[in-house]
Amino acid sequence: MQILANNPNRKSWLKVDKGSDFPIQNIPFGVFITKDDIITIGTRIGEYAIDLGAFHQLGYFNGIPLTDDLFMQDSLNDFISDGRKTWRLVRNRIAEVFEAGNSTLRDNQKHREIIIFDMDEIEMLLPVNVGDYTDFYSSKEHATNVGLMFRGKDNALMPNWLHMPVGYHGRSSSIVVSGTPIHRPCGQILPSGSSSPVFGPTQSLDMEIEMAFITTDVNNLGEPIPVDEAEEYIFGMVLFNDWSARDIQKWEYVPLGPFLGKNFASTISPWIVTMDALEPFRCESPKKEIEPLPYLQQKRTNNSFDVKLQAVIKTNNGDENLISETNFKHMYWSMSQQLAHHTVNGCNVRSGDLMGSGTISGPTKNSYGSMLELSWGGKEPLTLKDGTTRSFFNDGDTVVIRGYCENEKVNIGFGTCSGKISPPFKRKK
Amino acid sequence: MQILANNPNRKSWLKVDKGSDFPIQNIPFGVFITKDDIITIGTRIGEYAIDLGAFHQLGYFNGIPLTDDLFMQDSLNDFISDGRKTWRLVRNRIAEVFEAGNSTLRDNQKHREIIIFDMDEIEMLLPVNVGDYTDFYSSKEHATNVGLMFRGKDNALMPNWLHMPVGYHGRSSSIVVSGTPIHRPCGQILPSGSSSPVFGPTQSLDMEIEMAFITTDVNNLGEPIPVDEAEEYIFGMVLFNDWSARDIQKWEYVPLGPFLGKNFASTISPWIVTMDALEPFRCESPKKEIEPLPYLQQKRTNNSFDVKLQAVIKTNNGDENLISETNFKHMYWSMSQQLAHHTVNGCNVRSGDLMGSGTISGPTKNSYGSMLELSWGGKEPLTLKDGTTRSFFNDGDTVVIRGYCENEKVNIGFGTCSGKISPPFKRKK
Repeated sequence: MQILANNPNRKSWLKVDKGSDFPIQNIPFGVFITKDDIITIGTRIGEYAIDLGAFHQLGYFNGIPLTDDLFMQDSLNDFISDGRKTWRLVRNRIAEVFEAGNSTLRDNQKHREIIIFDMDEIEMLLPVNVGDYTDFYSSKEHATNVGLMFRGKDNALMPNWLHMPVGYHGRSSSIVVSGTPIHRPCGQILPSGSSSPVFGPTQSLDMEIEMAFITTDVNNLGEPIPVDEAEEYIFGMVLFNDWSARDIQKWEYVPLGPFLGKNFASTISPWIVTMDALEPFRCESPKKEIEPLPYLQQKRTNNSFDVKLQAVIKTNNGDENLISETNFKHMYWSMSQQLAHHTVNGCNVRSGDLMGSGTISGPTKNSYGSMLELSWGGKEPLTLKDGTTRSFFNDGDTVVIRGYCENEKVNIGFGTCSGKISPPFKRKK
Repeated sequence: MQILANNPNRKSWLKVDKGSDFPIQNIPFGVFITKDDIITIGTRIGEYAIDLGAFHQLGYFNGIPLTDDLFMQDSLNDFISDGRKTWRLVRNRIAEVFEAGNSTLRDNQKHREIIIFDMDEIEMLLPVNVGDYTDFYSSKEHATNVGLMFRGKDNALMPNWLHMPVGYHGRSSSIVVSGTPIHRPCGQILPSGSSSPVFGPTQSLDMEIEMAFITTDVNNLGEPIPVDEAEEYIFGMVLFNDWSARDIQKWEYVPLGPFLGKNFASTISPWIVTMDALEPFRCESPKKEIEPLPYLQQKRTNNSFDVKLQAVIKTNNGDENLISETNFKHMYWSMSQQLAHHTVNGCNVRSGDLMGSGTISGPTKNSYGSMLELSWGGKEPLTLKDGTTRSFFNDGDTVVIRGYCENEKVNIGFGTCSGKISPPFKRKK
């Protein structure tokens, strides 16, 4: 089946600003709530949110086999479970109905009022009910940088790193949608030179610029997925900020890995951009330095995606300070390799599961994906436009991650993944 | 409100064998499916399963404010969300209706046929939809033993261990109910003396004798729970076998912790025994060797529970080989301390979340909670009744964990947590 929705020459009868993240070729999926407290699955074109529950009820998906309430839900999990064929039929139909020359909905003012909202009339919610969240660690630059700082030069990149996409389990409950404020977390911190920890707010609140992919139902417990089939099970991608408290992490993480240093919050962008929409932006991933074991050898070499990423600190005075420019294509291990590795022991992966790439650091200093690396552990603080400096984030800072793909014909973007840091929680007396 | 259901002198009109894990004082909660494919929440007395959906529909919970379909569900999550007061009212009413002298249901043959099943007429399912699963590492004996083998004497117990209940996130999707077969997992293994891994089935498939507790909705994101309030949020406990592949784990776990060495399966016992039922079996936990930070200082010292645990290998010839006898009371950190630590950074915990104790090892060799420790890394294999030896498990072995509390008046048990090991998965051609 062709991905008709990707036709780069199509225009919509809905206004789309030049350079918008959401032209009619994107058609991402999300969940939103209207002013009347109706929760629905939707898509977005330009600055308009489209209620797919209403769109379906009014017959615009006629001829596609879909359950009646598939889009009148508070998560995309069931839709994602329906699989790639359904995703493609649905995107193709949306593209057709909103195409400039199609008058069916365009000229039906009553239906337009029910189906189409201005973005500022609605509020985005979490798009999926994340069953399990796994975070990988697949940027060689990031793993090397952190290793240098945490373990020194001799142990920077661990011996297993070039043999497998190292990963670990994160916390699903604290995944929040872009815009949710982030309390500065408290925890145990080992003061430099001391052997006893103290308790207090983290002094090294950090971001991790990541992308994450969301899966459909992949396998039954016990059944590995071959690496060359893995792409079939990936629905789409989001921007992802895996907030980290480096001092808490450093004291707790040996031997079982990060826990409270990470699980206080992770922020995702609200619109899941489908793999179909990203298809025109495939690119090669870095050449493997060691031949991996056969179960990780992928026939396809253009297994990565050219997604440009930026991180910005917004200070309270409104300044936007660009602090990093990186790209998803730097990831050493592909998503297919991550998924093949994850299931090679029979671990089952379900619809709505989320897998983070790990911090995406590029080869140059301005492309590092965390403050830990950008300020090199606090030794080289960044100076912002207002003259203040940052080794890590201050209360009141808003951290914004943006991401987009572009070629000569079309621009496909992810919107923003943003969170403002609020002071540590205080218990009401 | 009194825990009337705990009255040790009460007898049921349902037959309960002497020494049964499920006298009328237990009243655990689980989910089962009948031969007619009806899925319901239930409880158990002796060898009888009680359909609480039907019990409620037929009016036996009249006067207790419960939603109509609270028990006609495939998980306990909503019931657990209702909180301690509801759990207590429900257990008290069940105890009352099944008390020997109460003729209401006893003498209503038609209702009995709808509500009561023989245990062999039904099949137990997973009792909760586990949102997040956290595994702690709270047995000092286990942490020391593993540290000795993995890291040597000088780094056996890490510097953070006595300061915090170390924990990490596990995989929710692969938590299975007792009786589910466990495929021997494959993965990367580093042969001794080599610097390159090979791929194959684990050669060191292990159990971890654990208990796990299940929470109700604890907190909003950002809000820590004080240690002295934490017990209020714990619904009950199960037996838990956190299957582990030691060779896979050893190669992958630095620096982000265990992943594929653990996430292929964890088995839980099907009946959740409530904290109310365990109340008579409170005991002191081991004295703290270092005073913890204030947020972990618990006023109550009888914060542990005296639960006797056994692990057995059943071989294909039917032999039962007792390989370990341990006790939950050995845990250094209490469940309240685990929950206070887990939320101290604001991490939110929801109804149905599951928290494992970590392997429960006692001070003596026959009380170790894993084959890794029992066979001391394979150096001292166990000899079974049939003359074969085990450093780790063989295909065909069934591993059974049992647990119970007893005093002079009553016996409260957990039933069994069991899994048979099947050969590695083979893909159909």
